[in-house]
Amino acid sequence: MNYYGAQVARLIEELSRLPGIGSKSAQRIAFHILHLPKEKAFELADVIAEARRSVKYCRVCQNLTDEDPCRICSGEGRDHSMIMVVEDPRVMAAYEKTGEYRGLYHILHGAISPLNGIGPGEIKVRELLERLKTENPDEIIVATNPNVEGEATAMYLGRLLKPLNVRVTRIAHGVPVGGDLEYVDEVTLARAFEGRREID
Amino acid sequence: MNYYGAQVARLIEELSRLPGIGSKSAQRIAFHILHLPKEKAFELADVIAEARRSVKYCRVCQNLTDEDPCRICSGEGRDHSMIMVVEDPRVMAAYEKTGEYRGLYHILHGAISPLNGIGPGEIKVRELLERLKTENPDEIIVATNPNVEGEATAMYLGRLLKPLNVRVTRIAHGVPVGGDLEYVDEVTLARAFEGRREID
Repeated sequence: MNYYGAQVARLIEELSRLPGIGSKSAQRIAFHILHLPKEKAFELADVIAEARRSVKYCRVCQNLTDEDPCRICSGEGRDHSMIMVVEDPRVMAAYEKTGEYRGLYHILHGAISPLNGIGPGEIKVRELLERLKTENPDEIIVATNPNVEGEATAMYLGRLLKPLNVRVTRIAHGVPVGGDLEYVDEVTLARAFEGRREID
Repeated sequence: MNYYGAQVARLIEELSRLPGIGSKSAQRIAFHILHLPKEKAFELADVIAEARRSVKYCRVCQNLTDEDPCRICSGEGRDHSMIMVVEDPRVMAAYEKTGEYRGLYHILHGAISPLNGIGPGEIKVRELLERLKTENPDEIIVATNPNVEGEATAMYLGRLLKPLNVRVTRIAHGVPVGGDLEYVDEVTLARAFEGRREID
């Protein structure tokens, strides 16, 4: 499929490698880019190269950032007694949006998945242990995903961190707010039952 | 929403301007890019800039291409007696994939849409008239989209081109192959009835 010449074909190919972009979307985005004013297209290219060039892991929490330590680690009014461990910066962003959590984070950049060859050494576990040598939180909240890999990571972290004399907790499983119970899967329903609380 | 620093925020913002990319997809693509090896990310940026830099309109058919005339206009074995007029290079690509059409194309890069301030001067109509001064096709097939703008463009082209002593045709409207008639809209059903043909 090369009716447009090599450069356009290559642009479509590169775009179709991005996550969630199929070949039709890649074509659509490619033609959008080719119809942009030249300076706008160059700006997009620059922003991609510049972001990749300047971005690094925050030395404290491993967030992707261009300021080190990142805005949250160096932010005023953060509660240093809690560290929430997440798989991905987007989960951190999602928790920030809730406005309910004012503690710190630690980003693992993945979860343990033996089937995919990802062990504790492939994610930022060592960096978490490292920061616990100088930081002294009261609680570490494990907010990995509620799937097989996330649960395995949570169990692993639980066992690893408990000897360090810190409270290790897991975010609650239960039915999502606003959902219709009829459509909730059985495992979630069972977990919601297990985790039931007194109405006060 | 800027938990990642200015560069990352800017990358997400630029990506979310692309067609079909919402803010969640933009975040997902941004983190994908930030996790790429540096050279892969730079390659993506280069391909975007390079494609935009080198691409131009084919001087004959107005296709977007980095070879001028484009591969189809300069291709061997093309039937120069037919020009199919389309709104977009993607329609050309779709017709090429059918393998049924071996003629030439003309890309309008849009359709007449007075509501959006797009008149014949904003699309490549002048270029079509220009090429008809030297080229001498037997037939011009108007394959603009079957919507209000496409139909208006087809009618306009029909009136414009007929005095030039060339056969001007419109692609058939009818029920799509493989569809279930129950779900076809009434306008299409009516058009399919109007365009009925003898079974031979």
